[in-house]
Amino acid sequence: MCLSSDVLDDAYRLYRQQLLDAGLLLSSGVPGVYGLSGNFEGIIEAFEGYVTRMGSHLSPEVVRFPPIISRKTYLCTDHIKTFPDLMGSVHSFRGNERDHVRLVQKQEDAEEWAEDLDPTEVMMVPAACYPLYPTAANTVLPEEGRLVDLRAFVFRHEPSPDPARMQIFRQREYVRLGTAEQAHAHRDYWLKRGEEMLCALGLDVKPIVANDPFFGRGGRVMAATQKEQELKYELVAPIASTEKLTAITSSNYHLDHFGQEFDIKTPDGAFAHTACVGFGLERIALAMFKKHGFDAETWPHEVRGLLEI
Amino acid sequence: MCLSSDVLDDAYRLYRQQLLDAGLLLSSGVPGVYGLSGNFEGIIEAFEGYVTRMGSHLSPEVVRFPPIISRKTYLCTDHIKTFPDLMGSVHSFRGNERDHVRLVQKQEDAEEWAEDLDPTEVMMVPAACYPLYPTAANTVLPEEGRLVDLRAFVFRHEPSPDPARMQIFRQREYVRLGTAEQAHAHRDYWLKRGEEMLCALGLDVKPIVANDPFFGRGGRVMAATQKEQELKYELVAPIASTEKLTAITSSNYHLDHFGQEFDIKTPDGAFAHTACVGFGLERIALAMFKKHGFDAETWPHEVRGLLEI
Repeated sequence: MCLSSDVLDDAYRLYRQQLLDAGLLLSSGVPGVYGLSGNFEGIIEAFEGYVTRMGSHLSPEVVRFPPIISRKTYLCTDHIKTFPDLMGSVHSFRGNERDHVRLVQKQEDAEEWAEDLDPTEVMMVPAACYPLYPTAANTVLPEEGRLVDLRAFVFRHEPSPDPARMQIFRQREYVRLGTAEQAHAHRDYWLKRGEEMLCALGLDVKPIVANDPFFGRGGRVMAATQKEQELKYELVAPIASTEKLTAITSSNYHLDHFGQEFDIKTPDGAFAHTACVGFGLERIALAMFKKHGFDAETWPHEVRGLLEI
Repeated sequence: MCLSSDVLDDAYRLYRQQLLDAGLLLSSGVPGVYGLSGNFEGIIEAFEGYVTRMGSHLSPEVVRFPPIISRKTYLCTDHIKTFPDLMGSVHSFRGNERDHVRLVQKQEDAEEWAEDLDPTEVMMVPAACYPLYPTAANTVLPEEGRLVDLRAFVFRHEPSPDPARMQIFRQREYVRLGTAEQAHAHRDYWLKRGEEMLCALGLDVKPIVANDPFFGRGGRVMAATQKEQELKYELVAPIASTEKLTAITSSNYHLDHFGQEFDIKTPDGAFAHTACVGFGLERIALAMFKKHGFDAETWPHEVRGLLEI
């Protein structure tokens, strides 16, 4: 179904206003950047517990990365080529006191002061699994491969009235590093298990073959190839619009892209393949609020049971 | 006691290496930016639960902000004047395809590509309570004031070999907005309660009157005034060095600075005073590892009981 962007934007603004009025979101003044109420955060915490329980039989390693990543690592990931418009580069002030007087003067005169800053050693994390690969660089994986449980804030510079399209949000991921077969099996397993998990919470999810929003004309070719090779699946559900569905979980198979880039090998000497499943935590909470209402106290008994709330 | 910075740096590097070797920290390649193991994160989660339980009788509002803040809000806080060297300004690429080719070429030629980026609408959060004030802007507080429970990642651009001096870390805060008396009482209450809470966990903390590291020569004057007026207290404990102690919790009384800046008033028409207590979550976990050892399974029974681990 083809919706005009005006109609969609109206639906987004309306739903965002409802979330703000209910106090679930707090406006920061910037589209896509919100404070979350304790009730909103509580659903995320409960869902995270559910993810942990649903993955515990696999005994994953657990790692938590902060929202920034080394600039050097960032530049190993191709992100500057494929998603430059989404990046976040962190800059700071490195001058002396005289430079500082000038900086403050510029800002007071409403001139562009931030151009006088210098790039730091860090960038915003673009995807929760990016910080992991350099920690496995130049290693040979064990026979059984590795499974890692991650959660991180990721940044995407795409201001939008859609409350589900945040500029900063959390991904909870299970990442597999291993052979092509291990990576493939991980993707297939979690696509099915993720769908079951979300359906059990009452969400009307369905899997679709998807593609990333690669930049520019060259990006359109990459997107077509990605779709053709079925490297990306998403589980989509209604949030602000019931016609244009929102991806709340995604599963990516990276082939041996990161294995090559970071020299991660399998015992037979081949470059490791990687695959991840990522639960979009804020979006899943939003989908739950959409489906079951803004007051979690009134959610169905089975759902509250699964979330242990 | 006066330690040479070389001796201190050696102590920092040694302890950081021990934490890396134990797998509690994962190196990102950038000083002060680390991945945390599941065991490390588990202590933070347990300590957060403890903070929640110790504050629950006060029924605080709960809000969670992401690691970025509106640039406009940032500029209302004086941070650019007082801590420019610590700031994080987020920049992104806004050009067309031709600009993009140039950007990638620059990066491949090892030229300074990041200067071609544009400042976005957001900055890194400098302190967990900053995003709160604009959400209370132009309001009159209730008679009893407001108490808000916050947690956020904050960024400070100060690369250091000290594992406790991270560039990005989480603060858990209780913030009070109200009259001067209410703000003062909040500061005094939490300074005492915070000390008791940390002592109960076996940490050798002590309160000290402190000052912020304001920038430049003017900053030294501000620091002296802040200390003289006793606006900042810290609870310090040993982490990498037992001689140079580390602040693991701090309590700030802002007078009516934010009340004026954001036009927040008390019912009698005066500008609101604010005060906060902030628990440095990564540092508290590090202080616990220092005191009780790297394996939480072997920590004293009472400590495990209080943390419910």
